[in-house]
Amino acid sequence: MKLYETLAADIALSIQEGVLRLGDRLPSVRQASASRDVSPSTVFQAYYLLEARGLIRARERSGYYVVGDVRKLPPEPEQASQPDEDSSPVDISELVFEVLESSKMRDVVPLGSAFPSPLLFPLARLAKAMASSVQQLDPWSTVDDLTPGNPQLRRQIALRYRADGLHVQPDEIVITNGALDALNLCLIAVTRPGDAVLVESPTFYAALQSLERNGLQAIEVPTHPREGMDLAALARVLERHQPKACWLMTNFQNPLGSLMPDEKKRDLVALLSQHDIPLIEDDVYGELYFGDKRPAPAKAYDTKGLVMHCSSFSKCLAPGYRVGWAAPGRYTRAVARHKLTTTLAASAPAQAALATYLEKGGYDRHLRQLRHTLALQQTQFMEAIARYFPPGTQATRPRGGYFLWVELPHAVNALTLHRQALSHGISIAPGPIFSAHQGFTNCIRLNYGHAWDARTEAALATLGQLVQNA
Amino acid sequence: MKLYETLAADIALSIQEGVLRLGDRLPSVRQASASRDVSPSTVFQAYYLLEARGLIRARERSGYYVVGDVRKLPPEPEQASQPDEDSSPVDISELVFEVLESSKMRDVVPLGSAFPSPLLFPLARLAKAMASSVQQLDPWSTVDDLTPGNPQLRRQIALRYRADGLHVQPDEIVITNGALDALNLCLIAVTRPGDAVLVESPTFYAALQSLERNGLQAIEVPTHPREGMDLAALARVLERHQPKACWLMTNFQNPLGSLMPDEKKRDLVALLSQHDIPLIEDDVYGELYFGDKRPAPAKAYDTKGLVMHCSSFSKCLAPGYRVGWAAPGRYTRAVARHKLTTTLAASAPAQAALATYLEKGGYDRHLRQLRHTLALQQTQFMEAIARYFPPGTQATRPRGGYFLWVELPHAVNALTLHRQALSHGISIAPGPIFSAHQGFTNCIRLNYGHAWDARTEAALATLGQLVQNA
Repeated sequence: MKLYETLAADIALSIQEGVLRLGDRLPSVRQASASRDVSPSTVFQAYYLLEARGLIRARERSGYYVVGDVRKLPPEPEQASQPDEDSSPVDISELVFEVLESSKMRDVVPLGSAFPSPLLFPLARLAKAMASSVQQLDPWSTVDDLTPGNPQLRRQIALRYRADGLHVQPDEIVITNGALDALNLCLIAVTRPGDAVLVESPTFYAALQSLERNGLQAIEVPTHPREGMDLAALARVLERHQPKACWLMTNFQNPLGSLMPDEKKRDLVALLSQHDIPLIEDDVYGELYFGDKRPAPAKAYDTKGLVMHCSSFSKCLAPGYRVGWAAPGRYTRAVARHKLTTTLAASAPAQAALATYLEKGGYDRHLRQLRHTLALQQTQFMEAIARYFPPGTQATRPRGGYFLWVELPHAVNALTLHRQALSHGISIAPGPIFSAHQGFTNCIRLNYGHAWDARTEAALATLGQLVQNA
Repeated sequence: MKLYETLAADIALSIQEGVLRLGDRLPSVRQASASRDVSPSTVFQAYYLLEARGLIRARERSGYYVVGDVRKLPPEPEQASQPDEDSSPVDISELVFEVLESSKMRDVVPLGSAFPSPLLFPLARLAKAMASSVQQLDPWSTVDDLTPGNPQLRRQIALRYRADGLHVQPDEIVITNGALDALNLCLIAVTRPGDAVLVESPTFYAALQSLERNGLQAIEVPTHPREGMDLAALARVLERHQPKACWLMTNFQNPLGSLMPDEKKRDLVALLSQHDIPLIEDDVYGELYFGDKRPAPAKAYDTKGLVMHCSSFSKCLAPGYRVGWAAPGRYTRAVARHKLTTTLAASAPAQAALATYLEKGGYDRHLRQLRHTLALQQTQFMEAIARYFPPGTQATRPRGGYFLWVELPHAVNALTLHRQALSHGISIAPGPIFSAHQGFTNCIRLNYGHAWDARTEAALATLGQLVQNA
């Protein structure tokens, strides 16, 4: 056993014995190096090993934290999905609405919710930014600064791209009513009714609803629960079909939580470019990473202007403001024009408020806090799943975002479970709403973006019991 | 000559001689009855006659005002348009954008603008309402009160319907990102690509752009410049075609300014109902009436839930906030669902701010002032057109809104005029953008919703000279 492995084993033992507990911060590399009398690089190696085993996790600018004992967590699913790779019309919207509407009561434990808790957001500071910016709003801006949107806000967004190493000019940015609007506008900019579009399997239900509304065919591509869309499968599909676009999430995919590795993102962009297929990249969770830096979007590897990068402030900062954007590369003009003929522009006061908030600073501090909270809540959720769910349960272990994908024993029917859970005052998102073929019948998506408390734990215990009984 | 005619002639003389001048308030009926020693009903009859001749105009709660000398105004066009009444695909969007984008510079005299001057709106009071409401915003409302929208705002809108004698429940109201969003959502709720939709001739260019984007055919129906869509022609078209919807504006139509009389609205609804065709009613200018009460929307005559009434606050109160609504009758659920899958919801702070503003009162006072201003500016515009434009020029005389439709001598090409005007720093809206067939080549729409000043008058003089030269 090498020195760093010994050190790692020693720390793992402390975690198992409860000496180091969930949420505890590990000594810094310098401290550990001094106290254990080993080189800093040995400590680094030990920490990397523990991180790879899921016991600890690095958090940006604040060192390593205990996130649990991986052996106590449910196993991760390891198989990519196996959709039939054919194109098919989509008829899922009714089911999605049925599920979403039934879960809308405010007193339900919102494990099926699409949003994190709004209490996680700096709403008071945003209100201040709104109050000051709306009083200074240039009257002419309300009729002149329509789409592409508030120039200050577009500049702030471009600066954030720049900080992440991407060169996206303010002129390429079109402000939208949230990311969903951005995604829809990108979709209609590059498709006509009857066209086929590549999506993940499982995929975000709103993507399926967009395809359905626009009379588009879906081609579901096998997707790995940890690494996202399977590129070999994608290459295979591209031999057989002529899709007009690919719509996916590279970072903390909804519902899997998968994170596509950088080199895979690069290969994805290259593969699609070969076929001249635009990529509609939904990156609304990219800022909610638990690691030490923001994972790059596929847009970072785009050299031909084919990647249409979409994001928003709805999941990270300002739910309800409905401000998002697209950076649609060569389709920027087409997207802006569709924006003008559908909703004209995003709300001017909301745009101005966000520009002011971003200019004043504090967004990154807020994000660090938010990531911390979500990472901790994820571990608490996973441990509860391990505790309360029957053997045969698998769960993804996302490195960001606020969704878990749980694969239950095959006997479980997620739609039945959804109804049973609701009757116990608990919402979940059943697997079939994430697939044009209504597959994933034994899977559910859980939201850990709400405060961990006794009520949430009781809800998971109830859910585990319902699964057990199935 | 009857007594009231004598009285009317006397007052008309005072106007021609300049004793009574533009903007002057006439004596109240009671005052005139006493000073002239005639019965109040004689005064009423005289005032009605003068109003019918366009010399004076009633303004809500404040009596009659001098609006000009009708003999000095350009004649009104009297012929309904004569489109070919066939269905045809739409390919107009490119031209519309070309025109709109070229006119976007802020230093241009904005006679082609779609908006009234933002200086006409109570932006400071709105900012106060925003500041107070955003600080009290319930965090949960930002994720729970998505579509159909803020309950307080929907209640305020329902109250305004009630005050106008319409029974629209808050539950029927879907808040949207402005009226354009509402209209689009209504359109996609009742059509599929390839369907035909009835529109006016000329019609609002954004309606044509919506049809084009959604792969719909347009059937242009003859439309009278004062009374709106020609119902005999509509009946004829309904014999030959099976349109899936009719999209029009009953009140102060854009671009004509036409106002459909009440009985015609009733007949319109009855005729469409017979064929079970939904009416998408764009009523964004209804509040900008110059008469003594708000003209009813066609929705007032709807008994079958077929009228989808759309409006917004963008033209009357809060440009840039992007808050409008649809009251889509039997299609309410479908419209709400399309809203959820396109942009999810309108901006929560903007909705809350408007709800607060409406609750606090002051909207009606603001509207009275706004109508006053627009009515006066219309007269100033019309008189300038009479002064500066060559004989053969006709102009509509709308009883509300802020658009004039000008029919120029047939030799004039409106697209050429548009380019010439732009080179003189003046924007106009050329007729061809209001028609799927790019007709109305000798017509233009002018916006009188901006302050009347020397610059505006000089612009009209220049425009008149360009027309003269054509």
